[in-house]
Amino acid sequence: MNFELRILGSNSATPAHGRHLSAQVLTIGTDVFLIDCGEGTQFQMLKYQVKRQKIKHIFISHLHGDHIFGLIGLLMTYDLTGRTKPLHLYSPAGLQAIIEIQLNDAPKFPLHFHVTDPSVSTVLFENSRVEVTSIPLVHRAPCHGFLFTEKQQTANILKEKIAAYQIPYQAIGAIKAGANYTLKDGRVIPHEALTQAPAAVRKFAYCSDTMYTEAILPLIKGVDLLYHEATFMHDLLPLAEKTMHSTAKQAATIAKKAKAKQLILGHFSSRYYDLNPLLEEAKAIFEATTVVEEGKAICIKRERP
Amino acid sequence: MNFELRILGSNSATPAHGRHLSAQVLTIGTDVFLIDCGEGTQFQMLKYQVKRQKIKHIFISHLHGDHIFGLIGLLMTYDLTGRTKPLHLYSPAGLQAIIEIQLNDAPKFPLHFHVTDPSVSTVLFENSRVEVTSIPLVHRAPCHGFLFTEKQQTANILKEKIAAYQIPYQAIGAIKAGANYTLKDGRVIPHEALTQAPAAVRKFAYCSDTMYTEAILPLIKGVDLLYHEATFMHDLLPLAEKTMHSTAKQAATIAKKAKAKQLILGHFSSRYYDLNPLLEEAKAIFEATTVVEEGKAICIKRERP
Repeated sequence: MNFELRILGSNSATPAHGRHLSAQVLTIGTDVFLIDCGEGTQFQMLKYQVKRQKIKHIFISHLHGDHIFGLIGLLMTYDLTGRTKPLHLYSPAGLQAIIEIQLNDAPKFPLHFHVTDPSVSTVLFENSRVEVTSIPLVHRAPCHGFLFTEKQQTANILKEKIAAYQIPYQAIGAIKAGANYTLKDGRVIPHEALTQAPAAVRKFAYCSDTMYTEAILPLIKGVDLLYHEATFMHDLLPLAEKTMHSTAKQAATIAKKAKAKQLILGHFSSRYYDLNPLLEEAKAIFEATTVVEEGKAICIKRERP
Repeated sequence: MNFELRILGSNSATPAHGRHLSAQVLTIGTDVFLIDCGEGTQFQMLKYQVKRQKIKHIFISHLHGDHIFGLIGLLMTYDLTGRTKPLHLYSPAGLQAIIEIQLNDAPKFPLHFHVTDPSVSTVLFENSRVEVTSIPLVHRAPCHGFLFTEKQQTANILKEKIAAYQIPYQAIGAIKAGANYTLKDGRVIPHEALTQAPAAVRKFAYCSDTMYTEAILPLIKGVDLLYHEATFMHDLLPLAEKTMHSTAKQAATIAKKAKAKQLILGHFSSRYYDLNPLLEEAKAIFEATTVVEEGKAICIKRERP
């Protein structure tokens, strides 16, 4: 199953230096999620050939303009290009009024607003493949991040064992779910001898606008990929605290303490043309750090134990 | 005095084929006007190095999304980049509520909303150099275009005549305004012999979303440059009429009947990848037609009689 992140925007507040506003597309198998939707997101989707019609769920971290101003245009485009599939929007309170005042007519596809409570971590969405949980953040507006977790799959039964022990079809479900198998002669073949353990679940955490907070550590522990905002360098810590943003050093500290496997920095202040100093600052704390390269696909591979 | 139009977007409804949404920047001397502001306008301004801080007046033709969804992002960018100069917005009723619901805080620069009445032609703005008049259009929403007219300048006095007749400084204003000059010996030197006639006033008409209407002809008569929407080709006239848009042929007919000097077609349906058929259809009626080339400066030269 594919697990791929494509970040469409990496600048904070306004576009600058060829960098766009916050929006990320996460593909997990057949599920395509949009996370935040700054102005110009639909243009970036065209540029990077994102299949926008596959998106059924949009998660909005908070109602600041650089994270939402592209939403109304995307909705209008969906409506004008004949979308009929339902669309679900998850966001803190207030989004519905902002969208509805701008719609000339009700869209011709079902549009569902789900109001979230950014003060607590809750499951916002799940299906048989994925669970999406909110991560309470600390910002000037009610704000949360999102943790995307693959559902644990059952073990894979080994085909050669089915043949060797002549296991009937009806017994396979129970074995995959953890049962041993008893042969006609009474011998018990343990579950582990019949199966390959399932791949570890993959996790992506999106930590949007926030000041440094260790309260998120239990939620994002061991994630394969952590996106954490790094609006400033650490010499501007007072400004970061005043505006309730993070520094590159702080983002790296969170990644290290959470034992994340990879960290991606984004949401950069327009004062930085060159991002290398932010990258170096973070790498001094947490080596497996990169900065956003807009449009590039980042794949998380399945790892078997 | 410079008179330059730069069109930032040429597609209707949604972005497609590398074409952007409606927005135009008109520079007349030191005045810079923005006309409509579809999503992504601020990105196009960066791409084409438009000096956005020089814009003091924004004219919005109507409240359909492809003409306004870029406005809130531009306003936020103005606020975040320290704008202090007032900004004036002219539009049909409803814009203020759309903007204000999206502002987290009041902007730190004065923002003035001017509500227009699209059913009548009125002067919306004037200063010593320019007059902006509304052009009532016929569309699904209350909609007007805009006529930008240079103010008639006074005649230029000829320097060699000042010397030859020893005309005192105090008399020059009256001569430029049309007076003759009487020498000490009683001879009268006519105004025309002392001056060069002023250049003809230049005019640009922006005819945004509209179905074919000859009611606009008296307002746009003889304009140097006419932008007229041409959403469809004429084989789709029934669709143009249903959606209250124009065909390329109709736009050209308006240009011809108005005796415009140049016509630019824009606001194309996404169904057209190649615009040459629209151009050819219009040129068959009105030869001096072009299609929008986004970002290109179109200068109207001063013509002396």
